Amino acid sequence: MSQDSSTRIARDLSRWVEAASPGAQLPSTRSLVAEYGASPVTVQKVLRGLTAQGLVETRPGVGTFVRSVRLARPHDYSWQTAALGVGRSRSLQMASALRAARPGAIDLSSGFPDPELLPDRLIRTAFTRAARSRAVLAGPSPAGLPDLRAWFAAELASGAPASLTAPTADDVIIFPGSQSGLSAAFRSLAGAGEPLIMESPTYWGAILAAAQANVEIVPIPSSAQGPDPADLERALAETGARAFYAQPTYANPTGAQWSAQLSADVLETVRRHKAFLIEDDWAHDFAIDSKPKTLAAQDDAGHVVYLRSLTKSISPAVRVAGVVVRGPVRDRLMHAAQSESIYVSGMLQAVALDVVTQPAWRTHLRNLNEQLGSRRDLLLSSLHEHAPQLQVGHRPKGGLNLWARLPEGTDLGQFVREAEIGGVSVVPGDELFPAEPVAGHVRLTYAGRDPGHYPTAARVLGKILSRPQAS
Amino acid sequence: MSQDSSTRIARDLSRWVEAASPGAQLPSTRSLVAEYGASPVTVQKVLRGLTAQGLVETRPGVGTFVRSVRLARPHDYSWQTAALGVGRSRSLQMASALRAARPGAIDLSSGFPDPELLPDRLIRTAFTRAARSRAVLAGPSPAGLPDLRAWFAAELASGAPASLTAPTADDVIIFPGSQSGLSAAFRSLAGAGEPLIMESPTYWGAILAAAQANVEIVPIPSSAQGPDPADLERALAETGARAFYAQPTYANPTGAQWSAQLSADVLETVRRHKAFLIEDDWAHDFAIDSKPKTLAAQDDAGHVVYLRSLTKSISPAVRVAGVVVRGPVRDRLMHAAQSESIYVSGMLQAVALDVVTQPAWRTHLRNLNEQLGSRRDLLLSSLHEHAPQLQVGHRPKGGLNLWARLPEGTDLGQFVREAEIGGVSVVPGDELFPAEPVAGHVRLTYAGRDPGHYPTAARVLGKILSRPQAS
Repeated sequence: MSQDSSTRIARDLSRWVEAASPGAQLPSTRSLVAEYGASPVTVQKVLRGLTAQGLVETRPGVGTFVRSVRLARPHDYSWQTAALGVGRSRSLQMASALRAARPGAIDLSSGFPDPELLPDRLIRTAFTRAARSRAVLAGPSPAGLPDLRAWFAAELASGAPASLTAPTADDVIIFPGSQSGLSAAFRSLAGAGEPLIMESPTYWGAILAAAQANVEIVPIPSSAQGPDPADLERALAETGARAFYAQPTYANPTGAQWSAQLSADVLETVRRHKAFLIEDDWAHDFAIDSKPKTLAAQDDAGHVVYLRSLTKSISPAVRVAGVVVRGPVRDRLMHAAQSESIYVSGMLQAVALDVVTQPAWRTHLRNLNEQLGSRRDLLLSSLHEHAPQLQVGHRPKGGLNLWARLPEGTDLGQFVREAEIGGVSVVPGDELFPAEPVAGHVRLTYAGRDPGHYPTAARVLGKILSRPQAS
Repeated sequence: MSQDSSTRIARDLSRWVEAASPGAQLPSTRSLVAEYGASPVTVQKVLRGLTAQGLVETRPGVGTFVRSVRLARPHDYSWQTAALGVGRSRSLQMASALRAARPGAIDLSSGFPDPELLPDRLIRTAFTRAARSRAVLAGPSPAGLPDLRAWFAAELASGAPASLTAPTADDVIIFPGSQSGLSAAFRSLAGAGEPLIMESPTYWGAILAAAQANVEIVPIPSSAQGPDPADLERALAETGARAFYAQPTYANPTGAQWSAQLSADVLETVRRHKAFLIEDDWAHDFAIDSKPKTLAAQDDAGHVVYLRSLTKSISPAVRVAGVVVRGPVRDRLMHAAQSESIYVSGMLQAVALDVVTQPAWRTHLRNLNEQLGSRRDLLLSSLHEHAPQLQVGHRPKGGLNLWARLPEGTDLGQFVREAEIGGVSVVPGDELFPAEPVAGHVRLTYAGRDPGHYPTAARVLGKILSRPQAS
């Protein structure tokens, strides 16, 4: 009899718990005793059983509750494997530039500048000001805030010769970061299965966006002098590609700034092939020893789709980029932009515009450029002194990175792992080649935290390279 | 001689101007006279010629400068037409829900709630607080802020029966708005050329994202009762589709809330076909007469990819959505998310989390739900009284829209234009059908500005429908 009622109570209560919300209180022991005509001992035993199964928990003196944190059942998601198939992109690991460096490690890998290099006060003031404005409730503006678009157009126009028609606010689309702009440009100008020419090595985010857009990447080699126009010519002629993605100013990772001659040659080649240049001017605000010269400023025939982001120079929290794009292709990009994001937060746009139109922004940029110069030189001299095996062939005139070649025969993966163990995080260069890597490289940023540790980091790297290689 | 030197000066100056930056000052008349051995009259004539060409401008008493506002040359972007080809999506017009209503018009078309319905004070306080915090400089967090992800998981878990394993923060990815989440889900679960089942009619942004992802839309009819599971069964079996996009709660535009039976049937059908349900819970915060019940809460086997946005209920300026996705498919979505946007502004995430965790947020939602109820009822009774020709077959229990059918034979385009001229903006229903529209409908929102004008709007619509149709 006692056995029976215990089974019955257990079955009823299990069902009840199954249907109940987490945190729901079970009937009291007293009421269960009354309902089932069972002894309190029987009821208690049943409740202990449910507790052991992880279904309920007892708070002494309060009652018994459906568990809110349930014991995890082992999942079986294996059906998804068949449903999803192999997928187009197998390399789903995260880029090193996005991974946070191990706590305590010296960060030579981050893709985002040290907060010390950001205009802290300007951003806080801009957010506080915007929080009092209509921007907090602003509705969507599909192409972006007119004033911010005009600012991007004017920045580009300021470098343009008077003989060309300057871009206007109407030629600008605001994106939530340049990654979205790149993705929209790749989908609009190439599309699935179609060729897209890229420098090799180049920015990992562009490689990722190209892979996701299922375009066929056509790599052309690029060095600290930029690409060879003859390679571009050949790639355009042989593949019929109609777009070339490039970073002519302080390229990531090589640091290249194209000469005036190279810029003119590339523009002429692109024009002759009735193609587009997708110019990623990511490092416009990170000049050190030269002025950035945009190719887009030399074109008013709609051949250059120009991307400029403010995310890295204002703050990672202000994801705003402007894309200057002229002619019918603008509508395609606008369409791609809408289908991905519809519009960019009016608040972030207001803050970005506020920051870049403050007189203090110019002062900040000057300081920033000086600091980047000192950091670059400190990292260069530290490497020169303590890790002379690393060849840094080029002292970049701007940007955030050094591009260092490993001695012949070094195992790149092992080097990166040993550096990590030694407390230094670096980006393995092979992540940045859309084609086969031509040699073992690492990318070393001089914009991460704690530049004072560069000599230590260089010592760690030099020590690894001076050891005999296990191979 | 004077002719010669004038030609020479004109040629040299034109070249100089062409290469110069806007605003650059030309050499003075005096120095040109000296350089070319020409008369001041000759130099002046050349400068007038350049001025007439729009290349330079003279500021009397100051000098002559390269024009900064150039005369517009007529553009020729026609080469782009050939370069771009026809393109995959010809309909590049903007959706009515995004277009701002004509100034002065009564807005029954907006996709975004009246700022009056937003938690103004909460948002301003949250932004001001966040402006003092580390969030302004926060680096990227690829999947999103852990606390915000935990909040989305807990919200979903609160509706889940105790017998299922509840989602955790690890199952959540933060997107910059649900449009990005949709786009990533469509690309991850279907992809170019592959079938994706959708309700017809449905949300225009989903149709747009599907078109951009080049998936093949497989429409199944849906009404105020939701879709018929038999149609879903047939579509899954016949097309081999592995994903179904739906809005089970206060669907846009029909207002449908699925019954418990329908939800169970759909889940069972999706499971049997080893397929995914993409559940767009866009109106979770816009309940009026019922509680939202999410299907995702009934699934712990990874069959439901669940999207919930805070953009419409907090503010268009806080573009933040959470996607709950379990199993290996999570990595695919994460990858798609990174290639589009890398990450969401930490500032917007901090603000969203701040708002939804304030006790005042609950109060705000209760008020909001009451206001939506009054607005819905006012619009319904206004239409009933003044435009009885419009059939609103369903009084939605939540959401922001009425779905009204036009009398047989009404020309939808003409009706919408006449409404616009009469000062009432509405969304033509044909934009919301991925398949052929089954009848002429308009979508009427009761969340736009100035609900006091609903009777007037209804009178305008009724008057148009009472006129004899030009056909």
